[in-house]
Amino acid sequence: MKALTYHGPGRRTWGDVPDPAVRDPEDAVVRVDAVTICGTDLHILKGDVPEVEEGRVLGHEALGTVTETGPGVRTITAGDRVLVSCVFACGRCAYCRTAAYGQCTGGGGWILGHLIDGCQAEYVRTPFADTSLYKLPEGVRDEDALLLADILPTSYEVGVRNGRIGPGDTVAIVGAGPIGLAAVLTARLYSPARIIVTDLAQSRLDAAKRFGADTVLTSAEATPEAVRQLSRDGLGVDVAIEAVGVPETFELCTRLVRPGGRVANVGVHGRPAVLHLEDLWIRNVTITTGLVDTSSTPMLLDMLAVGRLDSGGLVTHRFGLEEMQEAYDVFADAADTGALKVALFRT
Amino acid sequence: MKALTYHGPGRRTWGDVPDPAVRDPEDAVVRVDAVTICGTDLHILKGDVPEVEEGRVLGHEALGTVTETGPGVRTITAGDRVLVSCVFACGRCAYCRTAAYGQCTGGGGWILGHLIDGCQAEYVRTPFADTSLYKLPEGVRDEDALLLADILPTSYEVGVRNGRIGPGDTVAIVGAGPIGLAAVLTARLYSPARIIVTDLAQSRLDAAKRFGADTVLTSAEATPEAVRQLSRDGLGVDVAIEAVGVPETFELCTRLVRPGGRVANVGVHGRPAVLHLEDLWIRNVTITTGLVDTSSTPMLLDMLAVGRLDSGGLVTHRFGLEEMQEAYDVFADAADTGALKVALFRT
Amino acid sequence: MKALTYHGPGRRTWGDVPDPAVRDPEDAVVRVDAVTICGTDLHILKGDVPEVEEGRVLGHEALGTVTETGPGVRTITAGDRVLVSCVFACGRCAYCRTAAYGQCTGGGGWILGHLIDGCQAEYVRTPFADTSLYKLPEGVRDEDALLLADILPTSYEVGVRNGRIGPGDTVAIVGAGPIGLAAVLTARLYSPARIIVTDLAQSRLDAAKRFGADTVLTSAEATPEAVRQLSRDGLGVDVAIEAVGVPETFELCTRLVRPGGRVANVGVHGRPAVLHLEDLWIRNVTITTGLVDTSSTPMLLDMLAVGRLDSGGLVTHRFGLEEMQEAYDVFADAADTGALKVALFRT
Amino acid sequence: MKALTYHGPGRRTWGDVPDPAVRDPEDAVVRVDAVTICGTDLHILKGDVPEVEEGRVLGHEALGTVTETGPGVRTITAGDRVLVSCVFACGRCAYCRTAAYGQCTGGGGWILGHLIDGCQAEYVRTPFADTSLYKLPEGVRDEDALLLADILPTSYEVGVRNGRIGPGDTVAIVGAGPIGLAAVLTARLYSPARIIVTDLAQSRLDAAKRFGADTVLTSAEATPEAVRQLSRDGLGVDVAIEAVGVPETFELCTRLVRPGGRVANVGVHGRPAVLHLEDLWIRNVTITTGLVDTSSTPMLLDMLAVGRLDSGGLVTHRFGLEEMQEAYDVFADAADTGALKVALFRT
Repeated sequence: MKALTYHGPGRRTWGDVPDPAVRDPEDAVVRVDAVTICGTDLHILKGDVPEVEEGRVLGHEALGTVTETGPGVRTITAGDRVLVSCVFACGRCAYCRTAAYGQCTGGGGWILGHLIDGCQAEYVRTPFADTSLYKLPEGVRDEDALLLADILPTSYEVGVRNGRIGPGDTVAIVGAGPIGLAAVLTARLYSPARIIVTDLAQSRLDAAKRFGADTVLTSAEATPEAVRQLSRDGLGVDVAIEAVGVPETFELCTRLVRPGGRVANVGVHGRPAVLHLEDLWIRNVTITTGLVDTSSTPMLLDMLAVGRLDSGGLVTHRFGLEEMQEAYDVFADAADTGALKVALFRT
Repeated sequence: MKALTYHGPGRRTWGDVPDPAVRDPEDAVVRVDAVTICGTDLHILKGDVPEVEEGRVLGHEALGTVTETGPGVRTITAGDRVLVSCVFACGRCAYCRTAAYGQCTGGGGWILGHLIDGCQAEYVRTPFADTSLYKLPEGVRDEDALLLADILPTSYEVGVRNGRIGPGDTVAIVGAGPIGLAAVLTARLYSPARIIVTDLAQSRLDAAKRFGADTVLTSAEATPEAVRQLSRDGLGVDVAIEAVGVPETFELCTRLVRPGGRVANVGVHGRPAVLHLEDLWIRNVTITTGLVDTSSTPMLLDMLAVGRLDSGGLVTHRFGLEEMQEAYDVFADAADTGALKVALFRT
Repeated sequence: MKALTYHGPGRRTWGDVPDPAVRDPEDAVVRVDAVTICGTDLHILKGDVPEVEEGRVLGHEALGTVTETGPGVRTITAGDRVLVSCVFACGRCAYCRTAAYGQCTGGGGWILGHLIDGCQAEYVRTPFADTSLYKLPEGVRDEDALLLADILPTSYEVGVRNGRIGPGDTVAIVGAGPIGLAAVLTARLYSPARIIVTDLAQSRLDAAKRFGADTVLTSAEATPEAVRQLSRDGLGVDVAIEAVGVPETFELCTRLVRPGGRVANVGVHGRPAVLHLEDLWIRNVTITTGLVDTSSTPMLLDMLAVGRLDSGGLVTHRFGLEEMQEAYDVFADAADTGALKVALFRT
Repeated sequence: MKALTYHGPGRRTWGDVPDPAVRDPEDAVVRVDAVTICGTDLHILKGDVPEVEEGRVLGHEALGTVTETGPGVRTITAGDRVLVSCVFACGRCAYCRTAAYGQCTGGGGWILGHLIDGCQAEYVRTPFADTSLYKLPEGVRDEDALLLADILPTSYEVGVRNGRIGPGDTVAIVGAGPIGLAAVLTARLYSPARIIVTDLAQSRLDAAKRFGADTVLTSAEATPEAVRQLSRDGLGVDVAIEAVGVPETFELCTRLVRPGGRVANVGVHGRPAVLHLEDLWIRNVTITTGLVDTSSTPMLLDMLAVGRLDSGGLVTHRFGLEEMQEAYDVFADAADTGALKVALFRT
């Protein structure tokens, strides 16, 4: 079959690799019907994720049709239309047994397109199929469901839920890339009173407005003082969501929250940040980090099915699966192409 | 009356100051029967808390007998034996109305011995008496109750409760000074399986053992690897409590917790710390900071009264109130004197 | 001034009573600009609330303009436009200090139009003004704000929040009177996937549809089996809200919830219900009851101010204050008049 | 092998049955080293649990040594010493994936000695071995671990944790049979200030004292008024745990709790109770029911291993496995024999 493989920093190939097959009794093989590219894939291609070996098929966000299952798989059968998401769950370890699948110690967690071959391919082998694949409800469009493979549960669980957003809150979302925009969408599930979004790029701020931000501020405008004045009582925001992944934006988040507020980090960081404990020790601040567990995926799929989750607009570019290289180029050059998420479909 | 006053860095005086009186209808005046000295008082004396003006009476931990109340005070009357604790509550602001008194925006919070004259004196004026003083239950000894003015609710609320310690947890407490030892005591209210304490000084570790630590480690021994091996599953502790207030100990805490663990900062910090987000972003860590609210004070007083809270051993030195200067000397020289908390009593 | 007074079962008068005045230093007097009638007022008039004395001015939901304050009032001043809501808070008792104002043991709780004269009058005395009145934000219409005096915080706190409604939940609301409809409105703040409403009257079900119910069922249709089939997994609803106040509807709620579900009782009950513990003991069901605390009132007012809470349609009939008797007639005869909430305005 | 089998109401046999074997790839077979009898077994023998078929081997609380595992079992191997507890988890259904194993819809839940053959036998087949068996830590005694098969997690999860007992609480436990006594033991993990226990039998109250109750009251003494006077503020208890299973004791619990209190039902009920909503609707009461999930079992096992959970005294009578009939007689006649839990050991 065809697949996108990594061959060291800067080198990716779309070419033939062996077809995957069931290796473990709990495996399934899924024919990929739709797949997308993540910012993390670009990091891998830069060489930032050294545990990815050369020859590895990339990709951890897809959906498709089950073609084969191992003898230990009970709830998934060939022909099922399933979501293949970024986190796998052994179902047996202490983390899996408390729905913290992202921290699985039994061989799951984020492995796809990382420690095992991923889903930017015609077929993909998926371990622990019973506890890692999600059947797609009737009537859900591929393009919408695809966003539940990573970006929507990530922004929801790690941003919105960790930040304990509630009705009436003032929320600052720092960064209006795909994750930041998904945070705007999913924050709205809890009816905050005010969503303030900041980013460097005006085009992204325009998108944030379309997704439901009440106020958008350029990075220059988004001073702690300016943001405080937009909050209900002038003391700061209830929740700040970091959706960039650099020290400066994290530090900004810690300066935006009111006493008693929460900072929910969603960004993937490569460098340490400075934590101003000399100011923060007295302010009752809660800071959370996290990898998505995908524990919210069944709920989000159901919300899609009943029309309560509108992700329209996140997919900006569509391709055939065989146009993988072009899709990577468009996605990697988001500044010029305006790409948020790209979607590739089996043709 | 006599009082301990601050006169700029390094200069304290025990001498005559005017007697306090009711100034606001919600004030009470309390005759000080017992008082203690806090590490924060030493910080003030070093000049680290610049908002403390010269001439200020220090002290924010006492108990005594009410001698006078303003006309707006309803639930406290002259003759009541009350706890004068470190946080005052206006009772009207949004923070006070949700029991977050430490963040009071209506004139309360930590003001005593800071923005208004404190209780290292024969008498003290206490604003917002109805919502800031706590009547002492029958049968509670002064020396025990005194520890509820700051140290026990601080370690309990900011350390134990913010850290969400629960039965069976493995807890690391970094720092075995008075706050760290109080964290050992109050952590035990939730029956953790293992309490590990680390400190530089062997004498403090010996104290930690007496207060209920299961394992004590010198700072050299307390490597992340060593602490992980003491945890239930070898993954790290469920909760790490920072009870020192320097960057190194905070950073250590972030390396001791397992994925999904909590770091509860109790220490008072004067410098920023490094937050290793490049490691932590994926580990589902929660970090909290906070000033005590004293919302737990009534419960802790009741626990003292029924004999369920044993604080024996925290007070190491006792003085008459007029021996204030000597008590400061002993407390400031804890390394040599072995002082944990000093208590001064009206004679 | 003119006021509506109770004179024993079935007898109400609109006539002259003495003007209220500040009696306690913490009192305010408020000129009533808008007021409404509650189903509870009808219960009082039937004689169901025996602690209401003859001559009592009724009413506990109003807004108006402060005309006078006692010397102990600090945050409210004459001229302030304020909400007068159904629950008062002494601000000092253990319940008030944890935001459970409805259970105030210091003289507050539900007292207005019950134990002290109410607000169906030209003026009303309001105790504990600092901790019981809520300043109205700019730009909030009287008619909308009036609904925050009782019905919206009640349905939100006692129904939605006690029931822990979350995104994706299936919610059944039993009863589509004003409280049930307000529960529909406020449930939507948490984005449930499905709201199912049942009532005897088709006209109320039509209203429920307009307020956001996804499915409406007549009482005959609303069998446990039928409701289960509407839930996501066929096991029952996540949350059932009782908004009627009779045993049959409560018992229905306990049969609608899935294992692990919650029953939030909002209805005012006069008779015991049967609790089928022989079925429920094994089903992990949580049942809550409660009087509103109005702790959510500031948030709901802010949501109104920013346009995130749409209560349009709850007020069906409008009167001048002097038309109080006619308004009572219309409200009491809701079956014929279709009245939900009636609003009376100072003219 | 020998086993205790049910043959219709009142008839039990200890005799030969076929040896169990692995039937499903996820099965294990366990040699029973220790087993106990539950009050539920007596209910079955009375014919109260009609889904138990004649010929069924009874028993759902044991521990033993794994002798065989199916090919789908990964984390358990022959020779492992394991706890066989009352609840099984398929590991795949929505309930299992959120640690609510008691409500498993995939073939688990309470099935042992109920829908499949139980463990009052020399060997037992255990489905879903990976997610249902718990390896015993080193150094845990059989007799202590046996109590974790049902009674301790049940009282802890369904009583203590559902009741949200916290430090300083006043707790009433109604019923001092084995479950009530286990509730006393496990409530203490959260350091309540006062534990009040009531029962009909003085001998059980004496036992409650030994297990840690602060006050014991006969049923005649345990009036709501008497219990209120024992609570901190005279308003009632924070948490009442129902540990009997008859309507009267449940109704008593609802009268013992203060406004804002919680009633946690642990008893197995055969008849409905009366819920006095005419009193309770306004009192902010939370009532919970539940079957144990055994989600706390690993924690409780660890607490046993480190010596933090003292269950001494719950086992009152010890037998060889072949003395099963005699053990039943002793347990069934608890009023005369004083039996709490009986333990049978392989000889």
